[in-house]
This record gives sequence, structure tokens and C-alpha cells, in this order.
Amino acid sequence: SLLDLILRSWKLSLIDWSPLVNQDRNVAGKMSQNGTTDRILTLDSMNPSIKKVEYAVRGPIVTRAVEMEKELKQGVKKPFTEVIKANIGDAHAMGQKPITFLRQVSALCAYPELLNDNKFPEDAKQKAVRVLQACGGQSIGSYSASQGIEIIRQDVAKYIEKRDGGIPSSADDIYLSTGASDSIVTMLKLLVAGEGACRTGVLIPIPQYPLYSAALAELRAVQVNYFLDEENCWALDIKELRRSLEEARKHCNPKVLCIINPGNPTGQVQSRKCIEDVIRFAAEEKLFLMADEVYQDNVYAKGCAFHSFKKVLFEMGPKYSDVVELASFHSTSKGFMGECGFRGGYMEVVNMDLAVKAQLTKLVSVRLCPPVTGQVVLDVVVNPPQPGDPSYKQFVAEKQVVLGDLAEKARLTEEILNQAPGIRCNPVQGAMYSFPRIHIPERAVRLAKEEGQAPDMFFCMKLLEETGICVVPGSGFGQREGTHHFRMLQPRLLNK
Amino acid sequence: SLLDLILRSWKLSLIDWSPLVNQDRNVAGKMSQNGTTDRILTLDSMNPSIKKVEYAVRGPIVTRAVEMEKELKQGVKKPFTEVIKANIGDAHAMGQKPITFLRQVSALCAYPELLNDNKFPEDAKQKAVRVLQACGGQSIGSYSASQGIEIIRQDVAKYIEKRDGGIPSSADDIYLSTGASDSIVTMLKLLVAGEGACRTGVLIPIPQYPLYSAALAELRAVQVNYFLDEENCWALDIKELRRSLEEARKHCNPKVLCIINPGNPTGQVQSRKCIEDVIRFAAEEKLFLMADEVYQDNVYAKGCAFHSFKKVLFEMGPKYSDVVELASFHSTSKGFMGECGFRGGYMEVVNMDLAVKAQLTKLVSVRLCPPVTGQVVLDVVVNPPQPGDPSYKQFVAEKQVVLGDLAEKARLTEEILNQAPGIRCNPVQGAMYSFPRIHIPERAVRLAKEEGQAPDMFFCMKLLEETGICVVPGSGFGQREGTHHFRMLQPRLLNK
Repeated sequence: SLLDLILRSWKLSLIDWSPLVNQDRNVAGKMSQNGTTDRILTLDSMNPSIKKVEYAVRGPIVTRAVEMEKELKQGVKKPFTEVIKANIGDAHAMGQKPITFLRQVSALCAYPELLNDNKFPEDAKQKAVRVLQACGGQSIGSYSASQGIEIIRQDVAKYIEKRDGGIPSSADDIYLSTGASDSIVTMLKLLVAGEGACRTGVLIPIPQYPLYSAALAELRAVQVNYFLDEENCWALDIKELRRSLEEARKHCNPKVLCIINPGNPTGQVQSRKCIEDVIRFAAEEKLFLMADEVYQDNVYAKGCAFHSFKKVLFEMGPKYSDVVELASFHSTSKGFMGECGFRGGYMEVVNMDLAVKAQLTKLVSVRLCPPVTGQVVLDVVVNPPQPGDPSYKQFVAEKQVVLGDLAEKARLTEEILNQAPGIRCNPVQGAMYSFPRIHIPERAVRLAKEEGQAPDMFFCMKLLEETGICVVPGSGFGQREGTHHFRMLQPRLLNK
Repeated sequence: SLLDLILRSWKLSLIDWSPLVNQDRNVAGKMSQNGTTDRILTLDSMNPSIKKVEYAVRGPIVTRAVEMEKELKQGVKKPFTEVIKANIGDAHAMGQKPITFLRQVSALCAYPELLNDNKFPEDAKQKAVRVLQACGGQSIGSYSASQGIEIIRQDVAKYIEKRDGGIPSSADDIYLSTGASDSIVTMLKLLVAGEGACRTGVLIPIPQYPLYSAALAELRAVQVNYFLDEENCWALDIKELRRSLEEARKHCNPKVLCIINPGNPTGQVQSRKCIEDVIRFAAEEKLFLMADEVYQDNVYAKGCAFHSFKKVLFEMGPKYSDVVELASFHSTSKGFMGECGFRGGYMEVVNMDLAVKAQLTKLVSVRLCPPVTGQVVLDVVVNPPQPGDPSYKQFVAEKQVVLGDLAEKARLTEEILNQAPGIRCNPVQGAMYSFPRIHIPERAVRLAKEEGQAPDMFFCMKLLEETGICVVPGSGFGQREGTHHFRMLQPRLLNK
């Protein structure tokens, strides 16, 4: 059981860490032997901004997990028979089943011969035909418009209007993307300017999803941290936001505020009141809002509900809705569909200067278009079967099973983790992860620090080696100094 | 016929341009009225590097083409009934049919229920099963490894070995990508460093594919132009390369040499001798080679053959093959498959420093993975049906039809364009475009320049308005001062 695994892993922090430390040193040795050749592209000559990029979710711990999977296949004996990759929100890899309707439409679009096959329901066929007719030469092998296929952007706009109780949305403000990461980086690219004390500062929550820190390092923007309140279920605290902003103004030009709601890795769901406070703060302090809302369908805790920044903004009236600039991000990789491999997503921009929008459109055109296969998946997500359609009942049933499972896992994970000594876990209100705090003994912390390694990285490596569970150390997301955490995708608890 | 269209369009350059000029001025007026608001993100405050990005292939001319399509649908009368988008190498949009086997495998991977359907050939099923087994949870909805699915990278390596007569290739050196653009930009990102006179210079051919100039603008690298020799069928001339390099050394640190072979937009195919010269030059001058070889399957002219830079490099012996650093790019968007919408491709790196490779792997991991649907398409391209397989004959026949059509169109385009007065077109040896030189009357050039517009842009806009043919002005690719060209995708000539 998970409890067993966690308890077993927990005992690891009490044992001798030194073999692992030495092993790590050898790996470092192997890497540097290569630096002696007279190459053009070397660690010294390469782009220094790229060197600073970190992305723990797919870092050394995952490399080791993949190696271990190969070792298991080769018959190497380990205390487990399977590596569980809880490092990343990869739903299907964790056993979640794809939604049938979504895959039917995908298959019909890929191979339109199937439109003559009576095994496919009529509504799937109609949807496929509608998308194909919007493609050049009626083929998903054609490039789409760089902003995305127009009818799909219209469907997204309608979906947003419905979600937000009728607040208007326009297809012109929708940009389809290659997952959400793509458009988040694109928006940051547009926003970053200036040098020295005029360099753009970007406020991000700590803990954060490391795409943000990675993109800011690459763009040489100033990362401005505001800490979420662990004691208060990782809530966003406006006082802390203000402290962070004022501090940042001494050395850079902070003009962007990033919010992740529901939280990744922290799983909190923002209250409506908190969102209003953030919007007022952004308006007063002239901050461009970036709302990462990719987990909007993943809200589990009683009393919690997802409120989109756009809806709250417009309900606050024209004093705010005429002024505050906002970009909101969504993805096909999360929610109930979990179609990460299709790399679909969209961004909606609100109150964007028209001339800047022309620049944005130009910028996305350089990469030609988001994958059309991902656009097709997105279209099903925002325009699903309706009551009366042949696929409606099955679609809704499958969706409910996935969301029900995720809710149950969220509850159980919190409950079980909090039973383990030395682990403390906030309620998982939403998203797909737990981010428990762990106590690591002083001696182990010292040993790790002497080696220039984060103590939680050692903990997670040890957890992986001994239990086969691959999680990501809290240092990969940021945490208050002296605290340690890890992020774990909700595991396959239920033998489903 | 094409000849009619070209002739008709050609007469346009002799008529009065002023209405068009004025119309354009109004558009500019509309754009700037928006700059008066008190926004955070404005043309003034935004990233200045992004403002410098240009990408003519999807620029204003395409925006207008899309508008015109809508006007036609709304019943607006025009001298034509269809807009022909010859601006981009979008094969399926121009009527090319997808390869059946490729789409069968895609559909099987998207909807594995179809594995029970006896309408699908066994080899398609086997291929789909093999890919699915390499996916987490056997679903293409899972993230793949960031570098790409391992068995697909192995298939790519085998494909390269076969193409290059047995020269070894390793899956470790293969990075799958979101189209070729993705990995080209990633490599440039790694390579660009330094400030002022130490800033990285990147040599690119002129005319070039504007992804290069766009990426260099965004990365603030120094674009170093070397001119291809129009009088000599757009051949690369080492003397010109040397002139360009020496000139660049006065103000930057040139360390990258980009080659596009077969040429885009220029359609030349490099001789083996020329490739050897370039490799020797790169070795002597310590330049990192980037070989854009996405049109490697598109070679038509008699006596021309594609030679990969890697093959030539290794056949030149260890003096070069142990030293020269090379990245080569390929794509699923061109060749015989033309599957642009799937956004598939790969990069092979040669002689890359191991520590830099670790940085590269880290960098691609931030975007999680290339679309798995594109990886599936790539796998079929590099590991197609073999003699004896049930799909072999049909696959080969379909491939031959596409390549035969493209070859015939290349020949006819050149022949017909050269019959038009004021147009001169080099032989189209490879790739998918013609890049004819056009004579624009002095008066029209003057008028356009007074308005700060490129004369060839006016020509192409007029061509679009009067004939419905959308082509890209030569200024979008670069051309010698005082000359004018346009790039045109080989049109649907043959009523196929």
C-alpha cells in the first residue's frame, strides 16, 4: 500500500547517506572529462542563460528512474517490480483511460476513410467532418492558421463564455498553443524588456511550477518570489505579495504577476475574495496578470470552486475590466482528459493593446502552427457531446469516473501522508499533486550540503532507489529556507 | 493556366500603384490609434527584440489572402473563384493526398480499438502496437521522453545509417522535435552568447528561409549574410562565404554556419564538391555547422543528388569527422509525406560535447515533449513498410506519385515562368519552390520606396488582389539590393 511505501521510504532518512553521495560524485566526474577537447560549443562558450535554466520535474531523478526501468527489464533484482513515475502529471501513464469520444474524433480526422465505418457514432463523425472542412485540403496534415483553426477558436470562446456565465469572449483573443507551456513562454517573451535596474521583474509564487523559473532564466528576466502561506493551506497572502513587490522595486522593474490556480505543486484553490484582492492589487500596482488555470477542472475539496480570473475581473466592473491586462492559460494535458502527448492548449488575452496583439500574432507565426492533432483534442474538450447526442452518456460517464477517482485519490493521499511520522500534508483542494513537508534529520542535511546538494534531492533519490517511487524534490519548485518537501502525483491507489 | 495568370499578373507592374499605396497608409493609421491607452504592455514597453522579428511567409499578405477567402464565401465578386495559397510549403492544402499507411498507423495509435478491425493491414497494426508499447500506459496521450520515444530515435538512427551508406548513427544523438523549426531555434539558443563585439555571429545564406532571421533577431544574435550566386543557379560560393566571414569578424564573433540544402527558397541542390569545401572551411575557421536538410527527399533535376553533410563529413576522414561539430535537421512536413500539421521532425548532433548535450537535454525537457502524434508519423517515415509487407506496394506507389508530381511541377514551373516577359527563373533542382527574379518598373519602385514599402511586396499584393495567387515577396527572404523576386510554392498545375 502507499502507506507502507511511504513509511518504508521514511525510514531511509535515518540511515547512512554517504554511498549515494559518492555515487553522485562519480557521475559528475564522468561529465567533466569531456570538457578537455577543443570544441566550438562548450559549457564555457554556450549561452550562459541556458546554463541557468533548471527543470526538476524532468531532471536527474527521472533519468535515474528510466535507467531503473531498463535494469528491471534486464532482470536486475530490486525491492520492487515497477517504477512508479509520480514526478509528473502524466495521467495516462498512471493508468487513466483516454476518453473514448475524444479518441474516436482523433482517429476519424487522421484517417477519414473511417467516416464510412458504421462502428463510429454519428456525433463523432459530424465533429470530425466539421474540423476537416476547416483544414486546408480537408487534411489535418495541413498547417493551420498560426493562431489556431478559426472554428476551434470560436468553440473555445463559446466555452469560456459558458464557463464565465455569459461574459463575452472573442475568437480573436484566443491563441491555440502547443500545450500551455508554449503560450506561457510566448507571453513572457513579449513582456520582458529593459536592462539593469529597468529589467522586467516577474512575480511568481513559491512554490511554483518550474516552467516559470526556467523561462525567466532563459529570458534573463528577474524572478521575483512571493511565498504562499503553508500554514494557511498555501493561500496567497496580499501582504506578502506587497512585501515582495516593494523589495523588487529596489532593483528591477516588476510588471508581471503570475498566479497558478489551482496551485501547482501546492494544490490550493483560490477563494473568490482572494482573486478580487489580487486583481485590485494588480490594477493599483500596474501589473500584467498571467493566470495559469490549467487545473480548472481539477477541484475536489468541499466548499472550493474554481473562479476564473476573467470572470471575477468582469464582475468587478469597468473600473477594473476596462483596465487590467490579463492572459489566461489552459491545456488539454490535465482536467479529465489528460491528453499530454497531444500537446494542446489555448491562451485568452484580455485588454491587450491591438498593436501588441499584431506582434504576438507575428511571433507565433514563426513556429507556423500548434499541432493540429492537439487542436482537434482541444475542440472536443471545449465542445463536447450534448444531451441527446449518441455519445453523450458515455462521455459524461467516463468523465465522471476520472474526476471521481482524482477526488478520491486527493482525499486519501492527504489522509495517508498525514499518518506517516515526519510528514505533514495540506489538504489537496485541487490540481493533481500533493506537496507534503518532510522532516529530514540534521545529520543528513549537513552531509548533503557539504556535497553541494539539496537535502530533499537526496531524500527523493533514496526513495526512488528503495521503493521505485519517483517524486520531485521541493527544491525544484522553491520552498522557504530550511523546509523540505516533495511533489508527488496522486498515485494509483485504487487498483483501478 | 499558370502561364495566363503569370502573364496577367505581370501586366500589373505597369499600372498605377497609388490606390494600393494609400490603402496601406490607412491600415497603418488604424494600428497606431490604439497606442494612446495607458497600458502596461505596449509597443514601447514590449521586448524590443521581438519587435525586430519578421516572418514574411505568414505576414500581411497571408492575412489579406484569408480575408479574401472570406469575401469570396460571402459572395463578393472577384476576377477569380479561389485563393491559391502558394506562400507556404503546405502540401495537403495544395491537394496532395496523405500517404494511406501513415494515416492508418496514426488512427490505430489514436484509437487502439481499431486493432480489432480487419480492415486495417497487419503491418500497420504491428507498427502501432510497437509504438503504443513504448508509450506510458500504452497511450499516445502520455508525455514521451523529452528527447523523443526511444524506439523511434533508434529507428531514426537506423534510417540515417542506411541513407549514409552505413556510417554509424546513435539514438543518443537524435532529438525528436516539433517540426524542424523547433530544434533549429533550440540549437541557436544554445550557441548564442557574448555581448558587443563578442556577440555570436551566425552566417546564413541570402536568400534564406526567414525562420533564421526571425530566431536571430529574437536571440539578439548577429545575422551575417552570405549571398548565394543567382547567376550560377544559386550555388554557394566559398569566396563569398570567406568575404562575409572576414567582414563579420570586424564587429562580432561568428561561430555558426547555417546551410539550407536543398535550398529554400532558392531550390538549388548542393554538389558533393561544394559540401566538402564548406566542411573544410568550417573546420579551418572553427564554425559550428547547422545543416537544414528538410528537403532531402525533394531532389528533381537530372544529375543532382542529395548528399548529407554527415555522410560527406565522415567520408572526408577523421581529420574532419573527429572535429567538425554538426547539427542536421529533418522534418515530416516536406518530402513525400507533407504532414505539416503533425509537427514532427528530428535533429541529429555530431561531435557535440557531452556536457553541452546534457544542457540540451535539460533545455528540451522544459517543454516536456514533442507531440507524440508527430513522433508516430516520423516513425513511419523513417521505418516504412518493407518488401513483402502487406502495405509495401501501395506505400511505394503513393510515394512515387507524389514525388513524380513534384518533379514534373518543378520542371513545368521553371519552363513557364521563363516564358513570361520580365521574369527569369533558375532551374528548380530541389525543394518545393520557385524563386524567380522579376523586373519592376522604375516608377513603381520609386513610389513604393517613398511609402517605405518594399516594391516586391506591392507586386505580390497586387498579384493577390488581381489573380488570387498568394506568393511571398523576395524581400522576406533577402535578396541583393536592387533585385526583386518572389517565392511561389509549386502550384496545382496538373489538375491532379
